[in-house]
Amino acid sequence: MIIVCKNTASQKKIDALIEDLKAQGLETHCSTGALSTIIGLVGDTSRVDLEALEALDIAEKVQRVSEPYKLVNRKFHSDDTVVEAGGAKIGGGYFGVIAGPCSIESEDQIVSCAKAVKAAGANFLRGGAFKPRTSPYAFRGLKEKGLELLLLAKKETGLPIVTELMSLDHLDLFNDVDVIQIGARNMQNFEMLAEIGKCNKPILLKRGLANTIEEWLMSAEYIMSGGNENVILCERGIRTFETATRNTFDVSAAPLLHELTHLPVVMDPSHATGKSSLIKPLAKSAVAAGADGLMIEVHPTPEKALCDGAQSITPAAFADVMSDVKMLCHIEHKII
Amino acid sequence: MIIVCKNTASQKKIDALIEDLKAQGLETHCSTGALSTIIGLVGDTSRVDLEALEALDIAEKVQRVSEPYKLVNRKFHSDDTVVEAGGAKIGGGYFGVIAGPCSIESEDQIVSCAKAVKAAGANFLRGGAFKPRTSPYAFRGLKEKGLELLLLAKKETGLPIVTELMSLDHLDLFNDVDVIQIGARNMQNFEMLAEIGKCNKPILLKRGLANTIEEWLMSAEYIMSGGNENVILCERGIRTFETATRNTFDVSAAPLLHELTHLPVVMDPSHATGKSSLIKPLAKSAVAAGADGLMIEVHPTPEKALCDGAQSITPAAFADVMSDVKMLCHIEHKII
Amino acid sequence: MIIVCKNTASQKKIDALIEDLKAQGLETHCSTGALSTIIGLVGDTSRVDLEALEALDIAEKVQRVSEPYKLVNRKFHSDDTVVEAGGAKIGGGYFGVIAGPCSIESEDQIVSCAKAVKAAGANFLRGGAFKPRTSPYAFRGLKEKGLELLLLAKKETGLPIVTELMSLDHLDLFNDVDVIQIGARNMQNFEMLAEIGKCNKPILLKRGLANTIEEWLMSAEYIMSGGNENVILCERGIRTFETATRNTFDVSAAPLLHELTHLPVVMDPSHATGKSSLIKPLAKSAVAAGADGLMIEVHPTPEKALCDGAQSITPAAFADVMSDVKMLCHIEHKII
Amino acid sequence: MIIVCKNTASQKKIDALIEDLKAQGLETHCSTGALSTIIGLVGDTSRVDLEALEALDIAEKVQRVSEPYKLVNRKFHSDDTVVEAGGAKIGGGYFGVIAGPCSIESEDQIVSCAKAVKAAGANFLRGGAFKPRTSPYAFRGLKEKGLELLLLAKKETGLPIVTELMSLDHLDLFNDVDVIQIGARNMQNFEMLAEIGKCNKPILLKRGLANTIEEWLMSAEYIMSGGNENVILCERGIRTFETATRNTFDVSAAPLLHELTHLPVVMDPSHATGKSSLIKPLAKSAVAAGADGLMIEVHPTPEKALCDGAQSITPAAFADVMSDVKMLCHIEHKII
Repeated sequence: MIIVCKNTASQKKIDALIEDLKAQGLETHCSTGALSTIIGLVGDTSRVDLEALEALDIAEKVQRVSEPYKLVNRKFHSDDTVVEAGGAKIGGGYFGVIAGPCSIESEDQIVSCAKAVKAAGANFLRGGAFKPRTSPYAFRGLKEKGLELLLLAKKETGLPIVTELMSLDHLDLFNDVDVIQIGARNMQNFEMLAEIGKCNKPILLKRGLANTIEEWLMSAEYIMSGGNENVILCERGIRTFETATRNTFDVSAAPLLHELTHLPVVMDPSHATGKSSLIKPLAKSAVAAGADGLMIEVHPTPEKALCDGAQSITPAAFADVMSDVKMLCHIEHKII
Repeated sequence: MIIVCKNTASQKKIDALIEDLKAQGLETHCSTGALSTIIGLVGDTSRVDLEALEALDIAEKVQRVSEPYKLVNRKFHSDDTVVEAGGAKIGGGYFGVIAGPCSIESEDQIVSCAKAVKAAGANFLRGGAFKPRTSPYAFRGLKEKGLELLLLAKKETGLPIVTELMSLDHLDLFNDVDVIQIGARNMQNFEMLAEIGKCNKPILLKRGLANTIEEWLMSAEYIMSGGNENVILCERGIRTFETATRNTFDVSAAPLLHELTHLPVVMDPSHATGKSSLIKPLAKSAVAAGADGLMIEVHPTPEKALCDGAQSITPAAFADVMSDVKMLCHIEHKII
Repeated sequence: MIIVCKNTASQKKIDALIEDLKAQGLETHCSTGALSTIIGLVGDTSRVDLEALEALDIAEKVQRVSEPYKLVNRKFHSDDTVVEAGGAKIGGGYFGVIAGPCSIESEDQIVSCAKAVKAAGANFLRGGAFKPRTSPYAFRGLKEKGLELLLLAKKETGLPIVTELMSLDHLDLFNDVDVIQIGARNMQNFEMLAEIGKCNKPILLKRGLANTIEEWLMSAEYIMSGGNENVILCERGIRTFETATRNTFDVSAAPLLHELTHLPVVMDPSHATGKSSLIKPLAKSAVAAGADGLMIEVHPTPEKALCDGAQSITPAAFADVMSDVKMLCHIEHKII
Repeated sequence: MIIVCKNTASQKKIDALIEDLKAQGLETHCSTGALSTIIGLVGDTSRVDLEALEALDIAEKVQRVSEPYKLVNRKFHSDDTVVEAGGAKIGGGYFGVIAGPCSIESEDQIVSCAKAVKAAGANFLRGGAFKPRTSPYAFRGLKEKGLELLLLAKKETGLPIVTELMSLDHLDLFNDVDVIQIGARNMQNFEMLAEIGKCNKPILLKRGLANTIEEWLMSAEYIMSGGNENVILCERGIRTFETATRNTFDVSAAPLLHELTHLPVVMDPSHATGKSSLIKPLAKSAVAAGADGLMIEVHPTPEKALCDGAQSITPAAFADVMSDVKMLCHIEHKII
C-alpha cells in the first residue's frame, strides 16, 4: 500500500503517521521527492483500512498495490479448486453444464426439460422457484411448490440441482438442493454471504450487474472466510452503455479470473445477452476462452415461458449448442 | 406497448397473436408497412409481460411506450407527497437535512455529533449500526449496541433517526427508528422491498450503484404496492467509467424525478463523490436543482472514523455548508 | 417510427402533425388509447429527423422501430461482403489475420516482424506510422519515415499492409497502403468518414471506445454512402466501469453484427485488454464467436516497444496463438 | 511512479531495471516486502513511458502517483486563468454565458436569436455552421454560408462568437471567429489539438462522451504545449448506462476541475440531458457548483429546429433561466 502525502504536509505530521503505522505492526519505506513524500507499507495490508488513511489531512492519495483478498487468491493457493456437487464436478479440468428453465412452471415442464437437457449432455439442472423480478406485478415463481417440482425432476433424472436463494428465511427449504445460487442482485448482500459461508453446500456466486472483478472476488472471500470453500463464480454479463444486447458478456473474465483465483468460472450467455440467437456463438466463445462451465436457459416452449423467454432456447437448439461445446471441450482437454 | 413483427412473419401468425392479445382484454391497432407490421397495444399494459412477447418467433422488437409503474407515477397522483417522520417533513416544499456519521462508534461520538448537526440546522440524524462493507475483514458496525446509542442520541436531541436495515431478521430492532434506510446494494432485494411495503414506517430508498431511474421507481412501486406510501428516494451517485470521483453524482435525477413521480428526492453528495472537499459545492448544486433534501456524512474527527472518513466533514464544515444551503433554500422557497 | 403524444395534446395539434407527416410522403397509423395517442409512421423513415419530432410540444417520446442505416443493413443485402486487399480476403468464409507492431520503430524491427508473422500465418501486416497518444509528451510515431519502412516490409514479404490515417492531410501518403485504418478516436470524425468514402481503398473501421453498435454502423454507412463498399468493422474493446482490463472485449459484437450487417467483422484482443497474457484465450473466443478475422499486436521485444508494449506478444507467442486459431478456423469452416 | 515487481522477479533483473531508470536521470527508492518489491520513482515522471514499464516481464503493476499533466496543473500555476475573447471574459470570477442555436439556419434566425440572447444577458453567441451528425442523411449545417451569417449576427449585436471547427481544412475560414469550439467527438483528435495549439485564439474544449477528467486535461495539455494558453473546458454530459437523459451531466466536474487546474470550466446542460425541461434546474446547479460559465441552446422555434430541437429552449424561456442564473451568480460573487 502506498500513501502519497500532500506537498503541504509537514514533516512532523508525516513522522507521526509513520510511528502510528509501525505501532500497527507494519514496516514502512519512505521516499521523499521534489513534490511529495510517498510512504510504502510492506507486509500484510489486507486488514489496513484504506479509507481511514484517505481521510488523513496529509494524504493526497492512497493506493493498494496488492490484492485485498487472500483465501480466493491464486497466489496463496496455486491448485485449481474442483467443486463437487451431487456427483458432478466443475473446475480443474472438469467442465460443468447447468441447463434448465428460468422459472419452474409445472411438473411436466421441469421434468421433461430435465430429461431433455440430460440427454443433450448437461450435468446440472437449473430452475428458479423464487424469482427476482423488477416489477411487483410480474410472476415471482412457484416458491415452495417450485422447489418440490425441482426435487422431483432431480429424482427422475439423477441430475444435481441449482436454484437461487432470495432470502435467508428460505434456507431451511434448500436442504436437498445441490448448489445454492446467489443472484446478481444479491452479490453484495453481505448478511447473506456471511451466513451461507457457514453452510457446507456449493455456492454459485453470480457477478453483480455492475460489479468489478475485484468486488466479486471480495464477495467470494466473504463466503470462504465463513469456512465454505465450495464457491463457483458465474459471469452473466455486465451493464454498460450498449443497449443492443441486454448486458455485455465479459468473456475476458474467464482467463483473467484464472490468473487471479483458483475458483472455477462458469459463464451464462443467456442472461448476458437476452437474445436466444446469440447463445450458441457465445457459449462457444466461453469454452474457447477457458471457462470451466456454462449455464444456459432451456425451455420446451420459450414463447410460452412465464419469464425470460426471449433468452431461452428449445431442447433441440440446446442439443445443437452442446454438440459444438463438446467438440471444443475436447480440444481444450476438458472432461465433459 | 408496440410489437414490431419480423418481415418474415406470416399473416396467419400475426392474426393469431392479435386474437391472443384481445383475449387478454387488450385493444390492438395494427400498422402494416413495406418492411414490417407493427401492433400497438392500447390500455393498461403494466401487467403485460414484455419478455413473453419478445420470445415470440414473429417478434423482432417489443417496446413499452408508457411507464411500467403506476402508484409512484406523477400522472396518476399529481400532488407532491410529503413524508413525515418524528415531527420532521420532507417533500412538497419541506426541505429535509439528514446528517451524522457513517458508523455509530461510541456514545460520545454519536451524541456530540447529533447535537452539532442539530445546532447547524439538520432535522434528521443518520448513523449506521449495521454496515455493508466490501471486505469481510472491515468493521461492520456496532449492530444492536449501535442502535441503542442512536436511540440515546435521539432522546438527547429530539432528532428523528435514519438508519440502514441490512436484513429482515433485524426488523424487530427497528421499532423506534423513524426512517428505515434501504441501501444501494439492497435496492433490488425484492424480498426485502415486499416485506417493508407492509410496515408503516417511512422508507429512504437509495438508488443502486448501477440502476436506472426506471428500475429505482419500480423498486419504490414494490414498496407502495405493499401499502406503504411513505417512500423517500435518495440519489447517491452512480457507477460510470470515471474514477476521479468514487461515483458520478447524477444531479439531473432531482428535476427528472419531479416530472415522473410525486415522491420526495433527497441527495447524498458524501457517497456520490467520496471526497470531503466536494461536498459543499455538490450540496449547493442539489438544492439549486430542486432536491427536497440532503444526506451528509458528518464526523467529529473524520481522520479517526472507522468507515468512510474520506467523505465525512467536521461539524464546523457542516455548519458552513448549511449556511449556504439555507440561503439557497430561501431562494427556492423551501421550508428548512 | 412511433410518436407517443402527451396526454395533454389537443386533437387539433395531433391532426396538424399527421397532415404534416403525410405531406412528407409518409403513411401514418393512429392508435388512440386511454392515456395517449400513438402515431405510427410506415415506410422509409431513415431520412425523418427524430430530433425534430422530439422537439414538438405534443410529443412525449419518439422511438425508431426500424434501423436508421440502409447500405450496411443485412436486410437489404443478404450476402456477406468479402473485402479483398492486396490479394488477401476477409469475410464470407475468408478469415483474415492482421498482425504486427503497434508502432513502426526501425527497418529491422518492422521487416523482421513482418517475416515472423507471415511465417506464423498472418495474411496482413499492421504497423503504426502516425500514432494517437493521450500525452503530448509521448512518442507519436515515425510518420512519413514509418510509412516508407512499412512499404519496405510489404515489398520484402508480399503482405498487404494496414495502417492508421490520423488526418486527411496525410491521405496522399497512403497511395500504396492496402487497407486504411480509421482509429477508435476518429470513428465519429464525420469529415474524415465522408472523405474516405470517396476513395476506393478498403477501410478498417475501429469501434469507438464508447460507441454503440448502431453508431458504429452509422459510421460505416457514412463511408458506404460516399461510394466505398469495402468496409471492415473492427471491435477493440469498449469502455466500462471495469478497470481490471484496459477495456471490455465485447465478443457479442461478432455474432450480433452478423445478424445486422453484411460487412466483415475483425476483432482486436490486444487493444481490448491491454494484457498480453489474455490475447490467446480472447483470440480463440473471437474465432469461436464467429469473427471474420483478428488483429493482434506482435513485437520482437515487447519490453522495448515505444508504445503499447504491455499488450504486445512475441513472434513465438504469436505462432502459438496461430496454431490454436487455425484449428478453430478449421472447425468453423473458415479459410485461413 | 510506482513499479510493483512480480514476486517471481529475480534480484538481478530488479537491479538492472534500477540502473536503467537511474540512467534516465530518475531517483529510485526500493521497498522489499514479503510478497513483492516496490520501486518508487521520484522526480519529474511526466515523460516516463508507463506502458513500456508495464511491458517488462518483471512488472506486475505500474501506477502513477502524480498527475501526467503539467501546464494545465493547478499545482504549478495557482492563479485562475481568465480567458478573454472579443471583450468578454470567462474564469477567475468572470461568468460567461454562451447562448444561441445548435445550427445556424438563416439570417433571420441567427440575428433575431443573437439579439434575444444578448437582451437576456448572454455575453457570447454560439451557432453551428459545420455540424457533426451521426447519420450521413441528416442536415450537416450551412457551412461557409453559416459562418457568414454568424459574423453578420456578431456585427449586429457586438457579441463575440463561438463555433465548432470540424476539420483543420476549414481553419482559414475561422479568422474572425472569437472562440473556436472543439467538439466532444474531436476531444482526442490529436492532430487537431496539436495544430490549434499553434494559433492564438481561445479554444473551448468540450469533454468527450466517454473521456475521463484526466484524459480531458491531457487534451488541454496538448493545446497548451503548442503555446496556446487560452483554453476553456466545457462539460457536456458523459455516456453512462442511464437512458432517461441523453447523457449524464457530471456536475462534480466543476469543483473537481477547480482543484486540479487553473483553466475555466463552462457547463452545457443542453447537450448533457437533451431535454429542454431540465435546462433551468441544471443551469442553476452548475452555477451553485462553481462553474465559470454556461453554454445553452436557444432557438426561436425549437420545434422547427433543423437539429437538436428537443434540447433547445425559446428566448423567453432563456430569459427566465438567466433571471435565476444572475441571482445565483450574485450570491457566488461572480461577475456576470
